[in-house]
Amino acid sequence: MPAFDELPLADGLWTGLRSPEGTACAIAVDQGRIAWIGAPDGVPPAHANGPRHDGQGALVTPGLVDCHTHLVYGGHRANEFALRLAGASYEELARAGGGILSTVRATREASEEALFDSASARLRSLLAEGVCAIEVKSGYGLALAHERKQLRVARRLAQAHGVTVRSTFLGAHALPPEYAGRSRDYIDLVCREMLPALHAEGLVDAVDVFCERIAFSLEETERVFQAAQALGLPVKLHAEQLSDMGGAQLAARFHALSCDHIEHLSPAGIAAMARAGTVAVLLPGAYYTLRDTHLPPIEGLRAAGVPLAVATDHNPGSSPALSLLLMVNMACTLFRLTVPEAIAGVTTHAACALGLQDSHGKLAVGRAANFVLWNVQEPAELAYWFGQRPVRCVVRQGRIAEGSP
Amino acid sequence: MPAFDELPLADGLWTGLRSPEGTACAIAVDQGRIAWIGAPDGVPPAHANGPRHDGQGALVTPGLVDCHTHLVYGGHRANEFALRLAGASYEELARAGGGILSTVRATREASEEALFDSASARLRSLLAEGVCAIEVKSGYGLALAHERKQLRVARRLAQAHGVTVRSTFLGAHALPPEYAGRSRDYIDLVCREMLPALHAEGLVDAVDVFCERIAFSLEETERVFQAAQALGLPVKLHAEQLSDMGGAQLAARFHALSCDHIEHLSPAGIAAMARAGTVAVLLPGAYYTLRDTHLPPIEGLRAAGVPLAVATDHNPGSSPALSLLLMVNMACTLFRLTVPEAIAGVTTHAACALGLQDSHGKLAVGRAANFVLWNVQEPAELAYWFGQRPVRCVVRQGRIAEGSP
Ligand SMILES: [Zn+2]
Ligand SMILES: [Zn+2]
Repeated sequence: MPAFDELPLADGLWTGLRSPEGTACAIAVDQGRIAWIGAPDGVPPAHANGPRHDGQGALVTPGLVDCHTHLVYGGHRANEFALRLAGASYEELARAGGGILSTVRATREASEEALFDSASARLRSLLAEGVCAIEVKSGYGLALAHERKQLRVARRLAQAHGVTVRSTFLGAHALPPEYAGRSRDYIDLVCREMLPALHAEGLVDAVDVFCERIAFSLEETERVFQAAQALGLPVKLHAEQLSDMGGAQLAARFHALSCDHIEHLSPAGIAAMARAGTVAVLLPGAYYTLRDTHLPPIEGLRAAGVPLAVATDHNPGSSPALSLLLMVNMACTLFRLTVPEAIAGVTTHAACALGLQDSHGKLAVGRAANFVLWNVQEPAELAYWFGQRPVRCVVRQGRIAEGSP
Repeated sequence: MPAFDELPLADGLWTGLRSPEGTACAIAVDQGRIAWIGAPDGVPPAHANGPRHDGQGALVTPGLVDCHTHLVYGGHRANEFALRLAGASYEELARAGGGILSTVRATREASEEALFDSASARLRSLLAEGVCAIEVKSGYGLALAHERKQLRVARRLAQAHGVTVRSTFLGAHALPPEYAGRSRDYIDLVCREMLPALHAEGLVDAVDVFCERIAFSLEETERVFQAAQALGLPVKLHAEQLSDMGGAQLAARFHALSCDHIEHLSPAGIAAMARAGTVAVLLPGAYYTLRDTHLPPIEGLRAAGVPLAVATDHNPGSSPALSLLLMVNMACTLFRLTVPEAIAGVTTHAACALGLQDSHGKLAVGRAANFVLWNVQEPAELAYWFGQRPVRCVVRQGRIAEGSP
């Protein structure tokens, strides 16, 4: 596999493209940036000479954005998946080392190199489908050295693969075993030591908390948010996945970028998110894997004008998903998003959920060239077929990263 | 893309393989057939020289078998999918030409060449994942010339792609519009004209019926089965998908290869299938797409010892699925199959459902070389990750058809 900076430049005029609205279009790329975009008969003379890339009528969309993943971790839990299906009891699973703490153990034991290699392999699956920006959370280290290791891998992934990575510190993901019964002490550690240290090292783009009865309380969440705010870092929240904790209202008070999962979100939570401009990140892969039956309040979110994003939530426990397009299908099939909503959910609105609205999620002059040519006739096919890989060509960060026009 | 017969031969000794049981193994391929299989330290001298293919520790499984598809059809229904999500009423959908009859219309209008091209594109998605044998049903022509066109395409797919195709005549899939209200007359046509003619042309490997209140009755199904039996053709049945019609018992009386869907199968149906040795074909892609909540009686089938197969049911209405591995994940997640059951469901038992148990679904000396090397450590990963494409190399019909060892 060639290094990213050995991939061919996408500079030149891309013709023979069709926009999602069905109109013919062309894109001029200059020094890795979109220099012009418009109708094929309106190409300015400045862009008419130079290399040509003929899309042969391909549908073009902005590069995809996967705005919620836990991509970096040690081991995996295929064995636990198999044991549970074979009828293993809770005790047998615990003896076999199941659950999130088994991933914490494996992540702590793994070297940075090993974490980089396994995350790279998973990332390649997402990149091959057209992902051009991705969020990566920490939260399986749960101790400074190991959270640092995860976040450093996130930074290295960006470098090695030429993909925009937003790294989110999720120290408050679960209570580490050595703090059992001392939740308050652990949150102290998160706020006073881990977050300031990792921020000082330039490893943190945002801060997230898992606010849930089985994780951290509303009050603990608020303390982490205050620590983030003091450092000028934006916040996000794993909110109302299993119950309505009122996390969305709290997150909105802190102008959170997003509230994620939100199956049990209340009308008051919706209203607060709408006022704060917080994005609702829907995670149908986890809903599917957990065989959840409590749908997020899509109608209410829509009525309130809350932007809807869709992500893989890639993680080894509740969503070992390696296709963002499959999440588009699941968002439509399981959550009844419309096709345009689901596509905006992995482009424009996903970019907003990461604070990347000025650089990703839309095709616009001056932005880095991130776009995908698809082997389909119409945008609805991106949501309709499932398990397919209809990518013809991916331009990522100004280079032809997958396929060819 | 090179023609199948230009692909490299797989002849030689394949070493560095791991069986699903975790033992090291090697496979000798000679003139496209498996000449020997066993432990790497037991390679007979006859196979020790000649080309070597080093699997580097890859998991090896038999080639996959997709035992229920409607792969050949005109058009697709992405637009209908999008309209329904956008809240279109039944009338609006009907006006937009939705439903199975829109596929019948598009299939009748399509040339054999166009059907071949669109089915080839979909087939490539399945082949890339390791499918080495596939069933293709007719049933969107619903008139002799058009059913013939579909079945001829099925035969050409086998030829062009070097894949074993079993073609199933499903003339009794739906009532064509020109026979509205004249179901009996249409079944006459199916039994007296279509089936005998298509059989005489060598286009039919098995006969299937959609037995359901919205399709054909038990009595009509029996007439089709009698016609098949008179020609010596095996039968299969779309049975008990939406209601318990008693189709499984009827199918068992005719020693059906399989009963498919079977969400509403009764204990009497299970017992009849067990006695007849009929395979239960589970179709989680349709269950998922239709948001069905009525699970097939897996426990009862297991207790009775009915072999369980898993297939895509690829079709443009209720299962636009293009990944058999995703069906493995869905069979586990939605139907709670164990991982070994799900893997047997797309190998051994899927072969049985097509009457191919002597040539497919298992690795054995004398068979054509059909096997897959996977980029995973353990078999459970084939079911656990979803949306991935973990194929390293596919040997299909004695040739290296995808990737390389
Ligand atoms: Zn998450
Ligand atoms: Zn079917």
